[in-house]
Amino acid sequence: MHEPPLILVTNDDSYLSPGIKALVEAVKDFGEVVVVAPDKPQSGMGHAITVGNILRVHPVDRFPGIEAYGCSGTPVDCVKLAVTHLLKRRPALLVSGINHGANNSINVLYSGTMSAAVEGAMEGIPSIGFSLCNFSWEADFQAATHYARELVWSALNNDFPLKTCLNVNIPSIPLNEIKGIKICRQAEAYWADSYEKRQDPHGSTYFWLTGMFENRDKGEDTDVWALDHNYVSVVPVQFDMTAHHVIAQLNNWTHGE
Amino acid sequence: MHEPPLILVTNDDSYLSPGIKALVEAVKDFGEVVVVAPDKPQSGMGHAITVGNILRVHPVDRFPGIEAYGCSGTPVDCVKLAVTHLLKRRPALLVSGINHGANNSINVLYSGTMSAAVEGAMEGIPSIGFSLCNFSWEADFQAATHYARELVWSALNNDFPLKTCLNVNIPSIPLNEIKGIKICRQAEAYWADSYEKRQDPHGSTYFWLTGMFENRDKGEDTDVWALDHNYVSVVPVQFDMTAHHVIAQLNNWTHGE
Repeated sequence: MHEPPLILVTNDDSYLSPGIKALVEAVKDFGEVVVVAPDKPQSGMGHAITVGNILRVHPVDRFPGIEAYGCSGTPVDCVKLAVTHLLKRRPALLVSGINHGANNSINVLYSGTMSAAVEGAMEGIPSIGFSLCNFSWEADFQAATHYARELVWSALNNDFPLKTCLNVNIPSIPLNEIKGIKICRQAEAYWADSYEKRQDPHGSTYFWLTGMFENRDKGEDTDVWALDHNYVSVVPVQFDMTAHHVIAQLNNWTHGE
Repeated sequence: MHEPPLILVTNDDSYLSPGIKALVEAVKDFGEVVVVAPDKPQSGMGHAITVGNILRVHPVDRFPGIEAYGCSGTPVDCVKLAVTHLLKRRPALLVSGINHGANNSINVLYSGTMSAAVEGAMEGIPSIGFSLCNFSWEADFQAATHYARELVWSALNNDFPLKTCLNVNIPSIPLNEIKGIKICRQAEAYWADSYEKRQDPHGSTYFWLTGMFENRDKGEDTDVWALDHNYVSVVPVQFDMTAHHVIAQLNNWTHGE
């Protein structure tokens, strides 16, 4: 008799977020689910790990009938601690999210949700990060849940690409308005950052990060294009960051001083 | 009359580290140098940014004759705040480091030093991260400083590749034992993580991340190979994380439930 596949669920908005609740509901009948998620919001933590401090972990009962833990660290810490300590066997799948807010294009690097999935891929675990293009805590996760189920089914029933995870973004529109899934590349879009300078009640200066998202990429094969046209975007993400195409150029540099 | 090039210096070990002091000394006669660096150690912060909290910044006088700031945020925060607020003109070059400890292979993703350089590349600034393969605060930066000067000269006197930064690691050996510079790809090496479980003085459990670095990549074109053979490794790093080669495979997945 086969054991049901073990599915590790994590995120960056903490185990208290509605998004992770929706994801657990979406995947729980595909196998045995274990949740290991941050115990507080960890948005924008990217691939951060806790190296100069300790980690705490404690069981939580937020998900009825599901083994779940809150961890004091980052999303990547959660994955490492789950795989090395908390899980009794190797997960067949890691799912991260559903993030409250888009993680398309360059946000794959800033996103704790996606960094957890990248860490899963490094560990050789098929891994998918899900994000809904809506920052609200009251967002409707119905369409996102539908596509999470569809993609988890596909991940468990097809060959999952090696050294790769999937970055899935779901537009914030009703399910019946979504046109389907598009496999995409990461758009060349950036944040035009700015900082709001304020004075605290004691007269000292501090800064808040603000900024506008700018897409100058006109390609119709990007995740930004897909989302703008009511598709679910799926970008395969790798962790080899080598710019292989510029190695020859660098070998032709002149040196000297 | 030309203005001298503006060089932004940052790191992840904080502006108090010997490594950034060595880097400032290495680059200061190539142009006008401004330092914007974390006010406390930020190792392992990856591409984390501060989104749910404020940032503070204050001038520091650690580098005689050099404009310098300490910032309460991550290395990537330092770059964003420098480019949008603190610098009076656009930098010709960003240098990050010299990190106390190697950042070869997969560590490019965990490293705050390298994430600062990646952020610089996103901003369109030629950017280089430097790391010495020695974690000690008392490490000898002589060889690292020599190669930092050589590569900064080259970066300022050759066409710098677009959408790319350089990940430079220097072996911890005397300068005259280093065989030169090798342009490399990121090795397929990983951390075999483990956690040490301890009890605090009050009887509660906590965890410390430990682990062994494992390289199963036999290629002689990798950064790990170069460092093992007494070369300075230079890996061009891009921020398009799309696994372009698996898009076709994903388009052939079967769906259904």
